[in-house]
Amino acid sequence: MTPAARDVLHASLGQDWANPSSPYLSSARVRASMEKCRESIASFLRVSSDQVVFTSGATESNNSVFSNVARVSSPSSRVLISPYEHPSVSEAANYWFSGRVDLMPYTVNGSLDTDQLAEYLNTSAKPALVSVMAASNESGVIQPWRQVATLCMNHGIPYHCDSTQLPGKENVDDLNLCTFSVSSAHKFGGPKGVGWLVGDGASSLLLGGAQEKGRRGGTENFPSIVSAFSAWQSNVDRSIDSRKLSLLRDEFEKHMATEFPSIRFIGQNSPRLWNTSLFIMPKFENLRWVGKLDKLGYQVSTGSACSTTKNGGSPIAQAMNLSPVDSLKLLRVSSFHSHTREDWDGLLAAFVQVYCELKMESSDSSVISI
Amino acid sequence: MTPAARDVLHASLGQDWANPSSPYLSSARVRASMEKCRESIASFLRVSSDQVVFTSGATESNNSVFSNVARVSSPSSRVLISPYEHPSVSEAANYWFSGRVDLMPYTVNGSLDTDQLAEYLNTSAKPALVSVMAASNESGVIQPWRQVATLCMNHGIPYHCDSTQLPGKENVDDLNLCTFSVSSAHKFGGPKGVGWLVGDGASSLLLGGAQEKGRRGGTENFPSIVSAFSAWQSNVDRSIDSRKLSLLRDEFEKHMATEFPSIRFIGQNSPRLWNTSLFIMPKFENLRWVGKLDKLGYQVSTGSACSTTKNGGSPIAQAMNLSPVDSLKLLRVSSFHSHTREDWDGLLAAFVQVYCELKMESSDSSVISI
Repeated sequence: MTPAARDVLHASLGQDWANPSSPYLSSARVRASMEKCRESIASFLRVSSDQVVFTSGATESNNSVFSNVARVSSPSSRVLISPYEHPSVSEAANYWFSGRVDLMPYTVNGSLDTDQLAEYLNTSAKPALVSVMAASNESGVIQPWRQVATLCMNHGIPYHCDSTQLPGKENVDDLNLCTFSVSSAHKFGGPKGVGWLVGDGASSLLLGGAQEKGRRGGTENFPSIVSAFSAWQSNVDRSIDSRKLSLLRDEFEKHMATEFPSIRFIGQNSPRLWNTSLFIMPKFENLRWVGKLDKLGYQVSTGSACSTTKNGGSPIAQAMNLSPVDSLKLLRVSSFHSHTREDWDGLLAAFVQVYCELKMESSDSSVISI
Repeated sequence: MTPAARDVLHASLGQDWANPSSPYLSSARVRASMEKCRESIASFLRVSSDQVVFTSGATESNNSVFSNVARVSSPSSRVLISPYEHPSVSEAANYWFSGRVDLMPYTVNGSLDTDQLAEYLNTSAKPALVSVMAASNESGVIQPWRQVATLCMNHGIPYHCDSTQLPGKENVDDLNLCTFSVSSAHKFGGPKGVGWLVGDGASSLLLGGAQEKGRRGGTENFPSIVSAFSAWQSNVDRSIDSRKLSLLRDEFEKHMATEFPSIRFIGQNSPRLWNTSLFIMPKFENLRWVGKLDKLGYQVSTGSACSTTKNGGSPIAQAMNLSPVDSLKLLRVSSFHSHTREDWDGLLAAFVQVYCELKMESSDSSVISI
């Protein structure tokens, strides 16, 4: 969380406790501040402020899109989603359109094939919704969401873009091409438990009072909203040199490939977020790497914290049809914009050191087992 | 928000930023702390910790109950709800059981008639769910939820209790008699945007990753959870003399009746939360009272901030069949446990002063209009 966003939250919890929907003056002040946040976000995204609904985050927003679309479409209508979607998209799709979810084919580079999509849209019955994420939370691969948006627009099909990974990492211009886009503030330095859903007629599936113009029940969480807005503003103001940051990651991958020749990187030939590297290590289970790297001060992941679906396995592993053995060797490194070449070099050295330790333990245990 | 809960939140935002579902040590520490919160709450409520699901608050929890029950019950099954329910209950009921919602009859004292309920349960087809709130967010009337729970248990019918108003105000013992109960932390001094759903097999309608054992998608909002727990703990530790606090409110009402003889109090003959007084003023629209009382330092409400349903009007006004004129004269006063007799006396004096001002303005305007 950015220190500014944290301070804004703390101050707001003290000053802005009035319920934005109450009738007295302190509430009116909070309500006005909340609307100012909404208008600024809307203006930045070049949508109307009526199209911005504050939610508890991207999971609620993604679920709501499918609930919204299911309500207004025929009971036989189908939806088309990419095979890389986050579980809050794929599970919501399968719940609200049970047995009526079509998966786009997986491509080797982890990126969506827009030609195949165009063919599908030209030849199949019109789906009620197309859902393709902006960038993968696992591989960092940036999907051709602008092209998807244009294709859908030309076919008059609503397009939902799970844009959770974009803000703070990539340009969010043109998100207004999407019928629905979403956000989670903790992805760009804001607090957890707050985000938004953007779209014409968008509403949350949480029903209740007249808050958010009747489009989302529940007392408005203004302290978190204004803190999220502060983080958003910092991101808008900060100019990130994506190319330079990507190069640092690319060099790390080059060195990793030299140290571990059988390593397999996922999405390396596609445009990717500068902060992500996802790979299958040639040896040892990912949790053993994670534990030892952690002790050396490096927190890497086995995938995404949200990526374990209820059926087990990550969406990428399932889409790629990875063997159970390979799935257990998946590691993901995510960087922050302030990380330097020295940080990446340190991580590389840590990987080399951990490899030695794991090899030694492995030979120790085989000695014991003899 | 209690100062302690606010400090806990601020500290946690700095220290406990790791995602509880990530595989490294700092995450494991946050995960363990989160489970400790869950276990303490469960132990206090005398339920298993598996029955406690953290959510974004009571609105999500209430919506989830109806979504859960709809999923497992027959498409023709009905639900029975009280006429006083919060919109997050009544709207969710009407969405998930469209055209299959039965309303219990309204009683003059604003309290549920358990004899009528018993007769309904003895003579009607078994409903899929009974929903009766613990205490009204508008009138403060405490419903006979323990008796309802026992009746439902005897008939083998799931019972959902919107218990949002209880913690911090009344004894929450026996909430485990209910199949489902809910909570919003901001109702007892915790932050907004966090709460829980308690119940066997309870799960949120927000689908996603494997968080909360697959029962609620979305990154766990640990900083808010631990802050909510701090507020909860303060409430458990604090002994509130409900009788004494109720007496202060009752004396205020007695004095108000002396000053404004035609005032009508709602639920005055029923057990009520000590902090609430809801009444219909004999003269002048409620917003005029609110504005002038606000200037004198008293923030009173026209009803509940959540009470304006999408159809307009508050649930109480609708249930009581209040005329539009009377509905516009509803005022609600809510106190805090630290308020004294002097505070109530000050409010009474403010009402008297505002009445004079409103009368003068009224006669001024009639002079002008002549």
